[in-house]
Amino acid sequence: MKTILILGAGLSSSSLIRYLLEHSAEHDWQLRIVDQDIDLVKQKIDGHVNGVALSFNALDHDERKPEIEKADLVISMLPARFHVEVALDCINLKTNLITPSYISEDMRNLDQAAKDAGIVIMNEIGVDPGIDHMSAMKIIHEIQEKGGKLTSFKSFTGGLIAPESDNNPWNYKFTWNPRNVILAGQGGASCFIRNGEYKYIPYHRLFNRLDYMSIEGYGEFVGYANRDSLSYRTTYGIEEIPTIFRGTLRRPGYCEAWNVFIELGMTDDTYEMVQPKITPRKFLNSFLPYNTDKTIEVKFREFLGKEREHLYDRFEWLGLFDGDNLIGLDDASPAQYLQAILEKKLTLDQDDKDMIVMMHEFEYKWQNQQHKITSHMVNIGEDQTYTSMSNTVGLPAAICAKMILTGTLNSVGVTLPIYKEIYQPILRELEEYHIRFIEKEFSPSISGQ
Amino acid sequence: MKTILILGAGLSSSSLIRYLLEHSAEHDWQLRIVDQDIDLVKQKIDGHVNGVALSFNALDHDERKPEIEKADLVISMLPARFHVEVALDCINLKTNLITPSYISEDMRNLDQAAKDAGIVIMNEIGVDPGIDHMSAMKIIHEIQEKGGKLTSFKSFTGGLIAPESDNNPWNYKFTWNPRNVILAGQGGASCFIRNGEYKYIPYHRLFNRLDYMSIEGYGEFVGYANRDSLSYRTTYGIEEIPTIFRGTLRRPGYCEAWNVFIELGMTDDTYEMVQPKITPRKFLNSFLPYNTDKTIEVKFREFLGKEREHLYDRFEWLGLFDGDNLIGLDDASPAQYLQAILEKKLTLDQDDKDMIVMMHEFEYKWQNQQHKITSHMVNIGEDQTYTSMSNTVGLPAAICAKMILTGTLNSVGVTLPIYKEIYQPILRELEEYHIRFIEKEFSPSISGQ
Repeated sequence: MKTILILGAGLSSSSLIRYLLEHSAEHDWQLRIVDQDIDLVKQKIDGHVNGVALSFNALDHDERKPEIEKADLVISMLPARFHVEVALDCINLKTNLITPSYISEDMRNLDQAAKDAGIVIMNEIGVDPGIDHMSAMKIIHEIQEKGGKLTSFKSFTGGLIAPESDNNPWNYKFTWNPRNVILAGQGGASCFIRNGEYKYIPYHRLFNRLDYMSIEGYGEFVGYANRDSLSYRTTYGIEEIPTIFRGTLRRPGYCEAWNVFIELGMTDDTYEMVQPKITPRKFLNSFLPYNTDKTIEVKFREFLGKEREHLYDRFEWLGLFDGDNLIGLDDASPAQYLQAILEKKLTLDQDDKDMIVMMHEFEYKWQNQQHKITSHMVNIGEDQTYTSMSNTVGLPAAICAKMILTGTLNSVGVTLPIYKEIYQPILRELEEYHIRFIEKEFSPSISGQ
Repeated sequence: MKTILILGAGLSSSSLIRYLLEHSAEHDWQLRIVDQDIDLVKQKIDGHVNGVALSFNALDHDERKPEIEKADLVISMLPARFHVEVALDCINLKTNLITPSYISEDMRNLDQAAKDAGIVIMNEIGVDPGIDHMSAMKIIHEIQEKGGKLTSFKSFTGGLIAPESDNNPWNYKFTWNPRNVILAGQGGASCFIRNGEYKYIPYHRLFNRLDYMSIEGYGEFVGYANRDSLSYRTTYGIEEIPTIFRGTLRRPGYCEAWNVFIELGMTDDTYEMVQPKITPRKFLNSFLPYNTDKTIEVKFREFLGKEREHLYDRFEWLGLFDGDNLIGLDDASPAQYLQAILEKKLTLDQDDKDMIVMMHEFEYKWQNQQHKITSHMVNIGEDQTYTSMSNTVGLPAAICAKMILTGTLNSVGVTLPIYKEIYQPILRELEEYHIRFIEKEFSPSISGQ
């Protein structure tokens, strides 16, 4: 019998736990699952005989150590900043480790120690990062294997609302941590490279520099630039590529409207607003010029200008002009007030489903001709436990766990799912779960930027 | 004989040193002046018999201690962050201290210790802060003394180029530290209060929300908001005032054009640009959308838009489209590149003079009527040693030094020049040096915001 220790039983662990429990009888696994909230763990295990619910502080070295000692594999779903500590324990106790999070510099530095311990520490094996790496590397390797030379790589991912639940003028609901949505793109300029020209977009213009694309059966999307596109050149071994761009997908109109919040200063999280007990209307007026001759509605219309007039209704629908009801926060940052306003309107209804969309575009030279491949994936969540986010984050990690425990994945060290022996079986099995990429040659679909 | 120790003999110390040397015979003072650069000190002393040039590291406690011990008064012209250390020495050695810099929280906390030592630590006694406090408090006190109630206070200061040296399309030259000009307004939203409404302006819109004013004989000016207006309510004892605004003055057109740099992302100092050996043209293009069908000139014109078309020539004049000459920096931040580009064009010519402009506007209720007072000061520098900046920073500190040493200023503790017994004699003597406020009642001159 093999033992799997899962640290954290939150939303993103649901599909991971379900997969591993479903395969536990076949492979003789015991799942030991820890969370501060034991009820949450029990709910996820749902009485399965191979699941053991534990409750202790997984951030405490002394508490988690005896459990890691018992395990053949640890899957850390803790916040990313705790992974290195867990990795050190795993190295000491010679236990394999999987995390879905971005590899940190400190984690990378453990590579030799992990190799010496004979263990694998697999990182970035969720959806983004994770499925993006795997689906992109599959095509990059195919192009390279036939002797093609990659000249452009663009890649977009979005966590959105499923079409059947899409019933508001923003075509958006919070399907994940709202705070991350409010702060998206902050912390520096977004940098990419286009035909050899380096491009930098400051935060306050980020949601106005867009790529447009459509996906058959799913309609139109727009993409705004992620902060870091350049580091993928090294990760994917395509250092010389003249065009690389990574972005986030939204529905048309969302980004232009979001940029209005940014331009007004409403997404700023660096200071507390002074005035107490404010309504959305007062909040809005704090960012508009003083003018007693004009209503707030008129000042806001002037701020939008002619070109963005059509966006006005979105803001009205959000209740931004409401002067009767308090937001219900005090001494908060603009970003916190904005989040509270949006959460009243953009939260999922009980039967709503989420959707993950991923879209890659590759251009390459082969036999003296320019070729183009697009590859996209659309996945809809099952319900609000087994969301698309949970499935796409959890299943790659779960399949990877199976590969490690059954001996079909034998690499050691700190690694990523960018190698064929890792991504091929995972991508294949993901198709059984409706996480499937559709590849097309020559499809002309991304323009702009 | 009394001994004055001056720490730092840089640009801002010139007028301070000249005044004190000129008055040294009359009052029997010896000036001991320290700088790392002894030649600079000698140059400033210019052979005067009461000046002693010293060269040691004034930041080193052990090196400066024996000099502070000898002194009756220390004037610290060191960077602001070193003042508290010097203040601690002064408290221990019971020596009075003057600094022109903003009072820090740590400095404020030394108040009781300074009182116990029986010394005065006078802060914020330069131009801004300094002359602004004194000239504003004079009128605030006058209004209060006759029973008026202050309802609005707006105050603007600018370090500019004198009209006779104003010969470029920006109507601006660097008369002070260029880096501070490039980074002006960064680090958070600007906050003020207008008729009871709190207003926040994010950095990327700061130079587009302007107040317009004119000064007889000197033409038109515009003011953009300083980051902090609100704290002056406490400093000036006007906590309940419904309108308070502090701003920085520029010539018309400067701010609108400067906002273009901000919107493009060129003033960002938080990251290094990746590409090596870039020209101004390449620098500009890094912030413009990729489009091989359009020249950089066309893309920039489109970025400006119709409304700002008239600003185009300013950017051309700066050499922003120059694709032949390297900027001459590598691995620099956008702000550093921009500074290097601007320094080629906006630097003072040998005979150029600078100008300090200050403008206050007060509104108050008295005998059931609204009244308005404006007070402004324009001062032109003598040359590039005795600049207006040096005169307006150094003379208030110098006059204050005289008051302390001659016993006409007897307060103790950590203080500011906001009390009548301090500002009255200083403002009076400043007039002899052409630093003179012109007050007007009812002049309607500030609108907008």
